Amino acid sequence: MSDLGTADVVLRLLLDGQPQTRAELIDRSGLARSTVNGRIEALLASGLVVPSGEAASTGGRPPARFRFNPTARLVLAADVGATHLSVALTDLTGEILHRSTTQLRIDEGPEVVLDALVGAGHALLREADRSPTDLAGTGVGLPGPVEHSTGRPNHPPIMPGWDAYDVAGRLGRDLPGPVLVDNDVNIMALGEHATAYPQVEHLLFVKVATGIGAGVISGGRLHRGAQGAAGDIGHIQVLGRTELCRCGNRGCLETIASAAALASRLEVGTSQDIVELVRAGNTDAITAIRQAGREIGTVLAAAVSLLNPSVIVVGGSLAQAGDSLLAGLRETVYARSLPLATTHLHVVPSRTGRDAALLGAARLVCDQVVG
Amino acid sequence: MSDLGTADVVLRLLLDGQPQTRAELIDRSGLARSTVNGRIEALLASGLVVPSGEAASTGGRPPARFRFNPTARLVLAADVGATHLSVALTDLTGEILHRSTTQLRIDEGPEVVLDALVGAGHALLREADRSPTDLAGTGVGLPGPVEHSTGRPNHPPIMPGWDAYDVAGRLGRDLPGPVLVDNDVNIMALGEHATAYPQVEHLLFVKVATGIGAGVISGGRLHRGAQGAAGDIGHIQVLGRTELCRCGNRGCLETIASAAALASRLEVGTSQDIVELVRAGNTDAITAIRQAGREIGTVLAAAVSLLNPSVIVVGGSLAQAGDSLLAGLRETVYARSLPLATTHLHVVPSRTGRDAALLGAARLVCDQVVG
Repeated sequence: MSDLGTADVVLRLLLDGQPQTRAELIDRSGLARSTVNGRIEALLASGLVVPSGEAASTGGRPPARFRFNPTARLVLAADVGATHLSVALTDLTGEILHRSTTQLRIDEGPEVVLDALVGAGHALLREADRSPTDLAGTGVGLPGPVEHSTGRPNHPPIMPGWDAYDVAGRLGRDLPGPVLVDNDVNIMALGEHATAYPQVEHLLFVKVATGIGAGVISGGRLHRGAQGAAGDIGHIQVLGRTELCRCGNRGCLETIASAAALASRLEVGTSQDIVELVRAGNTDAITAIRQAGREIGTVLAAAVSLLNPSVIVVGGSLAQAGDSLLAGLRETVYARSLPLATTHLHVVPSRTGRDAALLGAARLVCDQVVG
Repeated sequence: MSDLGTADVVLRLLLDGQPQTRAELIDRSGLARSTVNGRIEALLASGLVVPSGEAASTGGRPPARFRFNPTARLVLAADVGATHLSVALTDLTGEILHRSTTQLRIDEGPEVVLDALVGAGHALLREADRSPTDLAGTGVGLPGPVEHSTGRPNHPPIMPGWDAYDVAGRLGRDLPGPVLVDNDVNIMALGEHATAYPQVEHLLFVKVATGIGAGVISGGRLHRGAQGAAGDIGHIQVLGRTELCRCGNRGCLETIASAAALASRLEVGTSQDIVELVRAGNTDAITAIRQAGREIGTVLAAAVSLLNPSVIVVGGSLAQAGDSLLAGLRETVYARSLPLATTHLHVVPSRTGRDAALLGAARLVCDQVVG
């Protein structure tokens, strides 16, 4: 291992799927022949790289070619929601191979939920006819603030019993490889970005569900902030609003425009009920969700002025209500931001939908394992 | 040149100032001996690297050592303000060696201002007894939006005649090396970060002067956004305010809390007049500036929720009024952001002060030349 991280250069050169010869890898990397040969030996031994036929001979024995093998190892991805647990096995490019979802309340506590996660993971491995030792690692999204460096929840409001719980340590007992944990909105942003907008440098992912949060992609990378609290837009004050929020402040976005706030106003139970009312053409529901879009838009207008993203993706359960939410949101964003920042701005619904979190949880691991 | 940018690895390994032998550079870089030798030859030829005595012998002829030579080339840095032109020569670490400032109005237009900039640059080179061919490049900060990739101002409000003017092309006629142009707040953020907070990952620089703007450092790098418009916080709406702004919207931060707004309210001419009133203990001025701090704080509270920086630096001419501005600003930021994001947050005055822009303009070039 050199101190400039050249150890992964050979693998990175193979990630585009094109087979390469030793000579091509030496030429493209600028690394010493002995360094490249050593890396190829290690990658062949791990199975991450496999022989891939021979290149055309230039006289003499034709040189061997090597390619990346994305199913050499698998990734376990988990999306832990307030009332569900979704688990998937992906390959090392993050493509979902097997999956399962069960209803499970996060307030059952970390032991119950993480036991279920381990069980679901092992069941998927059996279904795929693979061994736990084939796991490259596990990525987990949780519905609350997480200290990414330690994998521990940090005072999560809807997760009783989880505060500072060693999620990575618990899962590491039963699942080989690193365990990486982050909050659900960050991993949704990662999943949407990697899957639908890999070339976009600056993207904002907004989740509108029971709560409201954002994930910030800056320069192609997830911006977590100093304490991993970036994107916590649910408690930004909305212009002209003073309703008391459970956080103690007044006029917080989440108290005004979240699915929980709308459900209470429309006297229904869940965001799914709201989505169904909107789809059925209920005027009160459509008016309420359009107004929620405008309120969210006042906060996003400020985010657009500050960050100048080229794409705002709107996801989460309430985004499934469709155009009403986006229309209200676009109305305020375009009215309240300067033309330079909005001329080329796209405000779009999530393309990865319900899979955003699973794809992002897998991405956490893929990025660490294969760079 | 390899396609992974290993060309600069050798130079980067020498930037800490420690002399190195060929063997050390080969070992630390992981590059082939021939690659390292080729780079050293090129760096010696350019003067960027010079011989630096010999290491202790391990038997036989002692190996030569090499070190970075920061004055091999010089950087011309320019801070073009609304009513001043400051120019400096720096070495390749960004340290200011010579400088000059003249009063010059930017509304004289690009020909007059850029002629003056070239003249001031050549005068400094003569003072330093160096040739224009010693320039590694020129960095320029302008008081308005700039398309960084082309170096052209983009509809700048206070710069008549400058819109889309080819600043880099004009300066390149008379100054050797690349010409890099950015807006003044971005380069102040760069200068403050590089000089005073090089280890801080997430920093927000706020300039409070005739206008109000911010520079965003994310992951140690300047976040310019998709059109280079990031940090344009002057037109974010302040909670509960509806004054008409020149941009056509209402309640914009700049219309309420900038030096221009305060000067008009206090019936004085410039931000310097306001600073003097505050220093003289004028109650109206102190009350006004503290309230401006609170208004700016409402916008920064949202920025803290979104980005979770560890440092907010307050600079610009009005920051020289001292504690009153910072007190109002801290009051709102700490009241309106969640504890996770503010527990370790520092809100501090600029350490680089009037030099922030010059240091940042030099940094634009240093980062490109020596990585």
